[in-house]
Amino acid sequence: MSGDHPLQRPLASGSPLRPSSAWRPGDPIAGRQFATFCEDRPFALEGNGQLGPITVAYETWGSLNASASNAILVCHALTGDAHAAGGIGPGQPTAGWWDEMIGPGKPLDTNQYFVVCSNVIGSCQGTTGPASPHPEDGEPFGSRFPVVSIRDMVRAQALLSDYLGISAWLSVAGGSMGGMQVLEWGVMFPDRVRSLIAVATTAAASPLQIGWSQVGRLAIAQDPGWNNGDYYHLGDGEGPTEGLMLARRIAQLHYRSDQSLATRFGREVVEPLDRFGLWDRFQVESYLDHHGRKLARRFDANSYLVLNKAMDLHDLGRGRGGTTAALARVQVPVLDISIDSDVLYNPRQQVELQWTLEELGVPVRLEVIESIHGHDGFLIEFDQLGPMVERFITEIGKS
Amino acid sequence: MSGDHPLQRPLASGSPLRPSSAWRPGDPIAGRQFATFCEDRPFALEGNGQLGPITVAYETWGSLNASASNAILVCHALTGDAHAAGGIGPGQPTAGWWDEMIGPGKPLDTNQYFVVCSNVIGSCQGTTGPASPHPEDGEPFGSRFPVVSIRDMVRAQALLSDYLGISAWLSVAGGSMGGMQVLEWGVMFPDRVRSLIAVATTAAASPLQIGWSQVGRLAIAQDPGWNNGDYYHLGDGEGPTEGLMLARRIAQLHYRSDQSLATRFGREVVEPLDRFGLWDRFQVESYLDHHGRKLARRFDANSYLVLNKAMDLHDLGRGRGGTTAALARVQVPVLDISIDSDVLYNPRQQVELQWTLEELGVPVRLEVIESIHGHDGFLIEFDQLGPMVERFITEIGKS
Repeated sequence: MSGDHPLQRPLASGSPLRPSSAWRPGDPIAGRQFATFCEDRPFALEGNGQLGPITVAYETWGSLNASASNAILVCHALTGDAHAAGGIGPGQPTAGWWDEMIGPGKPLDTNQYFVVCSNVIGSCQGTTGPASPHPEDGEPFGSRFPVVSIRDMVRAQALLSDYLGISAWLSVAGGSMGGMQVLEWGVMFPDRVRSLIAVATTAAASPLQIGWSQVGRLAIAQDPGWNNGDYYHLGDGEGPTEGLMLARRIAQLHYRSDQSLATRFGREVVEPLDRFGLWDRFQVESYLDHHGRKLARRFDANSYLVLNKAMDLHDLGRGRGGTTAALARVQVPVLDISIDSDVLYNPRQQVELQWTLEELGVPVRLEVIESIHGHDGFLIEFDQLGPMVERFITEIGKS
Repeated sequence: MSGDHPLQRPLASGSPLRPSSAWRPGDPIAGRQFATFCEDRPFALEGNGQLGPITVAYETWGSLNASASNAILVCHALTGDAHAAGGIGPGQPTAGWWDEMIGPGKPLDTNQYFVVCSNVIGSCQGTTGPASPHPEDGEPFGSRFPVVSIRDMVRAQALLSDYLGISAWLSVAGGSMGGMQVLEWGVMFPDRVRSLIAVATTAAASPLQIGWSQVGRLAIAQDPGWNNGDYYHLGDGEGPTEGLMLARRIAQLHYRSDQSLATRFGREVVEPLDRFGLWDRFQVESYLDHHGRKLARRFDANSYLVLNKAMDLHDLGRGRGGTTAALARVQVPVLDISIDSDVLYNPRQQVELQWTLEELGVPVRLEVIESIHGHDGFLIEFDQLGPMVERFITEIGKS
C-alpha cells in the first residue's frame, strides 16, 4: 500500500516545480510593463516596516483619452496577476483571468476605455514581493519580507495612477481580494474614483475566511521545504511545493460548491475502485492534484502566505472608527455583486455592504449571480457578470 | 517575524501529544467492555485483505429485556468512540458524545431501552485498528493495516449483536459516518433492524466530501513524522502530530458554518493586531489550534486516514446495482434528519434519500434541524434532535 502513496511517485511532468515567481526585473513577460517607485524615500507600510524602491508590474489595454477620464483599474485576486486579458506568452503561463470582460466590444470595452491592471505588492508576478531581490544584498527577501495590507496594495496602485497621469478612475473593479482593493480605493481615495465594482468580496474578512486562510498557510509552513521562508536557494522541487499544492487543493474546494463538484465528477475514479488502496483516487482528487500542481508551477509560496494574511487583515473599519464610518467616506456609485452559491464569501457579506451603503445614502446596486460554481463564479459566469458590469459602466460614463 | 512561527514554539501543554490511541487490549478504559471475534477464522474485508482475531470495544446502558427486543445500536462518527454517554474517566478523555440523548428519561431512555455503542473497526479507541498489535509480531499494524469499509464496520457490529444475543435492533441510530453505518445496516441486514435513524449523512459520499477527506489525509501524509504510517516507535511528539492537527483544523471549519464562527469570534484577536505579524492569530485561529491539539492528544493519525477513506468509499449502491436497488432492501421505517446549515453533508443528500425511499414505498420521515452550527449540529442541537428521535422511537416501540 505504501508504495502507492502519491507523494512518493515521481511527478508526471518534467517541468520544474519552482515557481515562475522566481521572476526578476528584466526577465521578459509578454505585454508586461514595469514602473519603479520610491527610489528616494521608503514605501512605508501600514504595519511595521517599509520597502525600498518598489517595482510595480502592470498591463494596459485601450488608449487613455486626452482628459484621462476613461481609465478603469482592474484589481486581481489572490493568485491573479496583471495579465487580466490576453493569451499565454513568454513568462505568462496563464491566459487573462478576465479575458471575457476586457477587450474591444467586451463589457470593459477597450474601444472606449483605457483598462489597467497591476500586480499587487507582495505577489510574485513582477511586482515587489518575497521572491524579489532585497535591495541590501540582492538576495530574495524570503523571510525578511514584511506583512503588507490591502491598503498598501492600493497605495502602490495610487503611485502607478500618478505615473500614468490618471487623477481619477472612471471605475475600479475586482473580485475577491480584488474587491477588497476596490472598497479600499473608495475609502482611501474617494476623490480619485468615479465608481466602484466590488464582486464576491467583503468589507472585512470573516472568521471563516480567516480560518481557511490559516489552514492554507499552515499547509505551507509545515512543509520542511518551506525552510522558514528561505527556500529560494534550494534546488528544483526542494521548496515548499507539496505544501503549496495542499494549500491550493484546500482553497479550490471552497472556491467551488457541492453542486458543481457533484455535477462534474460524481463518484468517478482514477485508479480501479476494487483495489481499495488507501491512496487510490476519485476523479475529484485528481482534479485537486491538478490544480495544486498547476499553481505550484507558477506561484510563490511566500507570496501565498503574505497575501492570505493581507486578506485576513482586511477590515475597512480598522483605525477608522468601524465599517460604517469608513464607508461614509465613499462618495460614488457602487455596484455590489455576490454569487448565490459562494460558500467562502457568503452573500450575506455583500448584503451587509449594501445595507450600510444605503443607510449612508451612497448609491449602491446589489446584483446576484446565479451559479453552481461558488466563489469562482466571478471568473466563470461572464454571461451574467458581463451585462451587469457593462450596464453600470455605461451609466457611469454618461453621468 | 520568523521567530513567531507557532510551529517553532514549544507546545503550551506538557502532556504528550502521542495519541491515547496507543491503547492496547487490557489497558483500562472506564465503562468499556471488549469482545474478541474471528479467533478461528479470518475477518475477511470487503476490499483486499483480512484481519485475524478482531477486538471490539463497546459500552452499554440500560438492560436488555427477556425477548431482547429493546436494544438500540448507536453508531459513532469519524473521531467518536464507544463512549456515547457518560463522563470522563480513566482512559476516557472525552465525555459521551451523545450524553444528552442516552440515559434515564432521555430520548433514548435507558429505563426502557438497552443502548449499545461500539468503536468501529479501523478506529483507535479499543477496537482493532492501525495502532493495534499485529497478530504475527505484536507490533502495531501501522502501514500494514488494510483499508476497511463502512460495510466492514457493520459486519463487526453484527458479530457483536450475535455475541450480545440481539437478533434484531429496535433501532440503529447515528450521525455523519454513524449515519452511513445506519443505512448499511438497513441494506445489509434488513431483517435485523426494526427502524433506522440516519442523521446528517448520505447514501454515498459526494465529491466535496471526498475532496475534504483527501486534503485531511494529505495533511497527515505530508508530515514527515507520519513516516509512511510507521511512527509508533517514535518518541513523544515525534509522530504526525502537526499533520493530524492540520487535518482537524480543516475539518473543524467545515463542521461549522460561516454564521456560527462569525457569531462566536468576529474579528477578535489573540496577539495584538498592530504588530502585523505573519503568525499572529485571530481568535478563530486559536480555536482551530485548540481543536487540532485536542484531537491529536486522543486520536491516532492512521485511524484518521483509514476512516476517512472508508467514508469516501461509502456508496450504498456499490456492487448492488445502484443506490435505488440497494435501498429497495430496506424494509423498515426511516427517520432521515438533516441540518439546514450543514455545508459538508448538504441537506440535498438527505432529500435525495427521502425521495428514493418514498419512491420505493419505504416509510420515511424527513426532519430538518434549524441551526447555525452546521454539520456539528447533530452533536449540539439536542433540543431539536431529542424530540425528533424520541417521538420516532416511541412510535416504533408501539408498532
